[in-house]
Amino acid sequence: MKTIAFLGPRGTNSEEAALAWGGPDAELRAFASFPALTSAVEIGLADVAILPIENSLEGPVGQTLDLLIHETGLKVRGEVVVPINHVMVGLPGTELADVKTVISHSQGLAQCRKFINRFLPEAEQVAWLSTAGSVQELVKRNDPATVAIAPARAQELYGGEIIARNIQDVKGNLTRFVALAVEDAEPTGNDKTMLGFTLPHDVPGVLVAAMQPFAEAQLQLTKMESRPTKGWLGEYVFLVDFEGHRKDPKVARVLEQLSTLTDQVKVFGSFPRFPVEQFRDLFQSHALL
Amino acid sequence: MKTIAFLGPRGTNSEEAALAWGGPDAELRAFASFPALTSAVEIGLADVAILPIENSLEGPVGQTLDLLIHETGLKVRGEVVVPINHVMVGLPGTELADVKTVISHSQGLAQCRKFINRFLPEAEQVAWLSTAGSVQELVKRNDPATVAIAPARAQELYGGEIIARNIQDVKGNLTRFVALAVEDAEPTGNDKTMLGFTLPHDVPGVLVAAMQPFAEAQLQLTKMESRPTKGWLGEYVFLVDFEGHRKDPKVARVLEQLSTLTDQVKVFGSFPRFPVEQFRDLFQSHALL
Repeated sequence: MKTIAFLGPRGTNSEEAALAWGGPDAELRAFASFPALTSAVEIGLADVAILPIENSLEGPVGQTLDLLIHETGLKVRGEVVVPINHVMVGLPGTELADVKTVISHSQGLAQCRKFINRFLPEAEQVAWLSTAGSVQELVKRNDPATVAIAPARAQELYGGEIIARNIQDVKGNLTRFVALAVEDAEPTGNDKTMLGFTLPHDVPGVLVAAMQPFAEAQLQLTKMESRPTKGWLGEYVFLVDFEGHRKDPKVARVLEQLSTLTDQVKVFGSFPRFPVEQFRDLFQSHALL
Repeated sequence: MKTIAFLGPRGTNSEEAALAWGGPDAELRAFASFPALTSAVEIGLADVAILPIENSLEGPVGQTLDLLIHETGLKVRGEVVVPINHVMVGLPGTELADVKTVISHSQGLAQCRKFINRFLPEAEQVAWLSTAGSVQELVKRNDPATVAIAPARAQELYGGEIIARNIQDVKGNLTRFVALAVEDAEPTGNDKTMLGFTLPHDVPGVLVAAMQPFAEAQLQLTKMESRPTKGWLGEYVFLVDFEGHRKDPKVARVLEQLSTLTDQVKVFGSFPRFPVEQFRDLFQSHALL
């Protein structure tokens, strides 16, 4: 699993997730769209594609879910959770008091509204195409009265100096990414499985019946959501994440029962559970501020 | 219910939904953001706010769901479904063969990609701030080689002439809007109820247990989805739509049972079910093309 496809440009949270997944020896390749990432693996340009699947504030990433449901046969081979932290980057020696212009992606500006209002209430805010690009622009402008807001990785790549860290309004902002590959992962004893299913229409109780096997087998659901089938309004694909590997006998039995209760089932894959608890302290200590 | 708040500018699908909900005598007032719409009702600037809640292709509108969950005590008083249709507008007498420039919101351009590729493969595509605004721009430019893509309502308001109708790639594209007001609606015998609940964490089977009362009462679920609590990643608010009014004795019993099985329940309101079947023919006849 040497070559990892991620959504460019470099210096974004997607690259941080690809680095976290692949480790220092992985070769990272940036692509320009989500569908390009799955295609890159399908045609052999990369071994793994890293795509965001949910954010703790914004919720599900519909585009990734729809790719899994409708467009790709790739499997979920792993997951990785990345904290979303913004830093403020300026030229070396820039003082906050002298700043007249803040550049970032509109989301970066929105996520750091409190910081900007408190420290730079009179600065002009300029929306840029990406957070990483705003650091490149800062360096190009070479103006000590301008700063950019971006992940720390953008400063490592493009230069400038970090003036302030962790400046986003909400400190406990985590994004979960999935690693897609031709095959999912072997059991480790601490795994999760993702699947989707559709149900016969207009039958009261059919969703509860479909979920009953999970409850009876005491499988812990870690997520349950729905996406439109893209057909008629009100027809959904239900998506379930739960603890266990599809090769566990207990899980295999539930999958068999599920196939008799649903219209269609698609197992997206089984993979080692990411130890998200590692971010609990970071999150709670900030949540108390 | 005379004054209806909707997301401006005029000439968009949100205005079509407000017109469909309010009828010809309603007074419509445009506001600039979703939170402004709920605030407008809360402070008495409008009687009803119309917000999109789901689209048959794109799925849920997270911002509206999060307003209902976290920010407003307004109730859902009704729903209205609007088909998303784009038209191509030009100056009177414009021929497709002479068109050199297409203006629209980036979503309008994306949703009509096939039409543009087939009829205007060499035209320059210009992204505009809104679909409605692209028609205003067309009229201002007064250039017979320029066209705009927008809902038909924008042509009614801002002028030009419709060159082609129904030009979006996917014909069966419906958006459901909710009407929010200080109070929800009285029972009509054909109603729906929307609610949200949170569950104790890490208890296998707790979601199935919470949904069991719906199944036992034979209440038809019309939607089930989840939103992040905006706290820790992996904690969700579950959102359920089902047939029946909260004042029906059968529904009232289910709500009572639900309150003992969940951490928190918030009933967003009961309201007459919109007869979405009226769009079934339109959708199917186009789906066969």
